[in-house]
Amino acid sequence: MALTKSPYRGTRDFFPKEMRLRNYIFQKMAEVSELFAYEPYDGPLLEEVELYLAKSGEELINEQIYSFIDRGERKVAIRPEMTPTVARMAAQVHREIAKPIRWYAIPNLMRYEKPQKGRLREFWQYNADIFGAGQYGEVEIIQLAVTLMKSFGATSEHFEVLVNDRRFVDLVFEGLIGLEPALTHKLYKLVDKKNKMPADKFAAEVRTITPDETKAKIFEEFVNLTSIDEVKTYVSKYFSETTLSDVFMQKLSGVESIGDHVIEKHVTPLISLFEKFKDQDLGEYVKFDPSIVRGLDYYTGVVFEIFDKHPDNRRAVAGGGAYANLLQIFNEPALEGVGIGLGEVPLTDFLTTHKLVGDFSKPSIDYLVAYFTPEGEKTAAQIANKLRSQNKKVEMMFGDNKPKKIFNYSDKKNFAHIVMVTETDIKVKEVATRTETTKTLADF
Amino acid sequence: MALTKSPYRGTRDFFPKEMRLRNYIFQKMAEVSELFAYEPYDGPLLEEVELYLAKSGEELINEQIYSFIDRGERKVAIRPEMTPTVARMAAQVHREIAKPIRWYAIPNLMRYEKPQKGRLREFWQYNADIFGAGQYGEVEIIQLAVTLMKSFGATSEHFEVLVNDRRFVDLVFEGLIGLEPALTHKLYKLVDKKNKMPADKFAAEVRTITPDETKAKIFEEFVNLTSIDEVKTYVSKYFSETTLSDVFMQKLSGVESIGDHVIEKHVTPLISLFEKFKDQDLGEYVKFDPSIVRGLDYYTGVVFEIFDKHPDNRRAVAGGGAYANLLQIFNEPALEGVGIGLGEVPLTDFLTTHKLVGDFSKPSIDYLVAYFTPEGEKTAAQIANKLRSQNKKVEMMFGDNKPKKIFNYSDKKNFAHIVMVTETDIKVKEVATRTETTKTLADF
Repeated sequence: MALTKSPYRGTRDFFPKEMRLRNYIFQKMAEVSELFAYEPYDGPLLEEVELYLAKSGEELINEQIYSFIDRGERKVAIRPEMTPTVARMAAQVHREIAKPIRWYAIPNLMRYEKPQKGRLREFWQYNADIFGAGQYGEVEIIQLAVTLMKSFGATSEHFEVLVNDRRFVDLVFEGLIGLEPALTHKLYKLVDKKNKMPADKFAAEVRTITPDETKAKIFEEFVNLTSIDEVKTYVSKYFSETTLSDVFMQKLSGVESIGDHVIEKHVTPLISLFEKFKDQDLGEYVKFDPSIVRGLDYYTGVVFEIFDKHPDNRRAVAGGGAYANLLQIFNEPALEGVGIGLGEVPLTDFLTTHKLVGDFSKPSIDYLVAYFTPEGEKTAAQIANKLRSQNKKVEMMFGDNKPKKIFNYSDKKNFAHIVMVTETDIKVKEVATRTETTKTLADF
Repeated sequence: MALTKSPYRGTRDFFPKEMRLRNYIFQKMAEVSELFAYEPYDGPLLEEVELYLAKSGEELINEQIYSFIDRGERKVAIRPEMTPTVARMAAQVHREIAKPIRWYAIPNLMRYEKPQKGRLREFWQYNADIFGAGQYGEVEIIQLAVTLMKSFGATSEHFEVLVNDRRFVDLVFEGLIGLEPALTHKLYKLVDKKNKMPADKFAAEVRTITPDETKAKIFEEFVNLTSIDEVKTYVSKYFSETTLSDVFMQKLSGVESIGDHVIEKHVTPLISLFEKFKDQDLGEYVKFDPSIVRGLDYYTGVVFEIFDKHPDNRRAVAGGGAYANLLQIFNEPALEGVGIGLGEVPLTDFLTTHKLVGDFSKPSIDYLVAYFTPEGEKTAAQIANKLRSQNKKVEMMFGDNKPKKIFNYSDKKNFAHIVMVTETDIKVKEVATRTETTKTLADF
C-alpha cells in the first residue's frame, strides 16, 4: 500500500507560498523586537515533564501535552508553551546579567488539540518577556505588541488590547464578595466564559456560586465595567473598610491604614497603567475589560489579550501578563516579569480577515539565465555566478532551449530580467519595460 | 526539591549570544539559497513512523528515532531527517508545478544519540533539494554548497567537497569483484570505515569478504584512487567484457554493446561531472574520493560530503547526493532529485575551528534612552517611539537615573547613541565620537 502524502493531523506542510508568508511574519516579529532591544533566545524542543507539572495549567498537562518516555527512561514532553523554558533559562543567568532582561523567541510548539479554526496541533508562537522592570515592563510589552500589530498594517480599527489586573479581580472576588478559594476559582472560570453564554444563564450561574443577592449584584456590576473611569467609580462606591469581607480583612491584619493600603496594592497599579498608556499614545488601542483573567496559571498582576475587532473573527490573537515569581520552582530569588505569547495561527487568521496579507504566491527573482545551444551552458553558468556574487537572485534554466520555451517558463514566475545566451551573443531583456540589450560576458 | 535548570540531555539553551550566531548562520543559508532561486518550505515536526520505516536507514529507526504513540493511537516520530518529508511534499505537487523544483529548509531535528562533539540530540539541519534536473542539479547543489561555505568566509584552504558516484562503486563491487548483495553490502560498510582503521586491519577485513587475492587487489586499488584521472586509468585498465563478473553480465543480458553501455551508465556521469566542475570554477573545491558512499540509504547516483581540511576537525560538515526515486513509496511516477543536508552543529564547529565566527556577545543597539527625573519619563518614551518609527533600535532605561549610572550601564552594551532627558533639556551623546548635542523633542 502506498504511504499517505498528507501531513500528520493538525500539522501543516508549508509549501513555498505559505512559507514566504510565515517568513514575512517571523521577520516582522524579529524586527519589531529588535526595535525595542529585545534579544533573541531559544530553548530545546523537549523538556522534562516535571517542568510543566510545576507551572502549566492542568488542562495542558492532562489533555494537551505530547509526553513520552525516552530511551533513557526520562519522562519528556514536546514543549506546549515557552514560558516554563524561559523561566528555566532566566533562572540560570539572572544573577549575573544586567536587568531588565528582554528576550524574545519564535518557537514551534505542540498541543494535542482537536484541530479547528485558529487552533492546530503544531504552531509557532511569538514570545517576548521582560524580567525585572515592574510596571514599566507592562507598558513596554504592550507598546511592543501594538507596534508589532501596526507593522502588519493593522490599526485600532482592526484590533484592541483588553486589559485587566488580577490584583483588582482578587480584590473584588475575595475582598468584596468574600468567597472561599474554591468558589473564587469558579468565579474566575465563569468570568472567562461570560461572553460565550446567554445573559440569563450567566445570571443563574452567578447565583449558584454566590446565592447572596447583594454580592451577586456586586459581581455583575463588576463584570459589566467597560472603562477605567467606571473602575474608579466602582472602587469609590464599594471601597471602605466596612465593605471589605472578613476573609480579606484577616489577610490584611496588622496593617494600619487598611483602606489606602488595599487600594494602593490592588487598584492603583491598574489606574496608573492606563495613565501611562495615555502618555505613550496607546490610549486608542487599550481598553479595560473585566472578563480577561487568563485562566488560573502563573499570572499575578496585569493580564491582557489582543482581540480581533472583526465581527467574523472575535477572538484573541495574543495574550499575556505579569507574573511575580516564575523562578521559585528553581529555588531562585523572586524575579518579576511580564510576558506575551502571540500565535502565528490566530495572527494569520487576523491578517487574512482584514485583508492585510500581500501576495506571496510567486518568488521574486532578479534573473532567469537561459541558453539556446549546449555550447552556451558554460557561459550561462558563469553569468549566473557573476550575478550571484553581486547579490542577485538568479535561476538557471537548464538544457538548450528555444526562446518560446524560455518565455513560456518565465511567465510563470516573477523574473525582473531574462538573460539568453544565443548562438552568437548574450541578450538581456528587462521584463517590466520589455527592453532588450546585447551584452558580453565581461559586462556582467 | 528544586527543578533542574539544565536543558534536557543533548539539547541546548540558546542564550542571546548563541542565538545571534545561530541567526547569522541561518540568515546566510536563506540568502544563499535565494541567490540560487531555491524556495523556502517546511514540514511538520512529527511524521507518522511509517514514512521513516519506508526510507530511512535501519540505525536511524532502531536506535535513534524519537517515536511514540499519540493520544489517538497513531505511531509518530519527531523528524530525525528532512528527506522523507520533502519527498512526501514533492509527491503532493510535482505533477502540477514547473520543474525543476528547488526547495530549501532549516528544520530542527532530533535523534537519540550519545551527545559528543559535533553530535547532539537536537540540532538544525540546512536542507536543499532540486527535483527533475538530472546532472545539472548535481552541479548546482554543489555550487550552492560551495557558495554557502564561502559566504562564511571559508576558502578551499578550509574545506573540500569529496565526490563519488554509487553507480561507479556498484560497477566495481558487482561488476569487477562480483560479490553477492550481502557481501557487497559489507564492502560498502568497510569503505565507509576505511579512514578510521589501521591499514593492516583493513587489508585483513577485505580478505574475509573477498578471499580471492586478485579481487582483493582490485578492491584495494579502487579505494586508493585519489583523482578523477586515476579513475579514468583504472577504468581503462579493468574495463572490458572479459573482466566483468558473471553476476554483472547476467544483469546486462540483451544489451548489444556491453562495454560502452556499462561505461556510459556507470562511469561517464562521474567524468562529465568533474568536467562541469571545472567549467564552473569548482575545480579547486572538489575531489574524487572512493571512500564517500553515504551508507546504504536512498542515494543512487552521485554522493558527496563537504569535509573540513583542518587536522583537528577532520569530519564531514555536510553530505548529500542524487536519488532516483524517492516518490515511489507514494505510488507516484519517478522523479529524480539531488539533495544536501548540512548540520548547524558541525558547521559551527568548522567555523570555530577556522576562527571564522565574529563576535556575537553583545547586541548592537542604536540608542539608549534614559531620563534624570520622573517627569522625564513621558518625554523619554516619546523619543524612544519616534526613533523606533524611524527603524532605530532603542532601549529604554527605566526609572530616573543619575548620569553615572546611565554611563555605567551603557558600557555593558553596544549603544551607538545615548539620549538623556535631563531636568532642563535633551542631550544626545554619540558614543564613538564622544560628541554631545542638545536637542528638543521635535528634533527627533
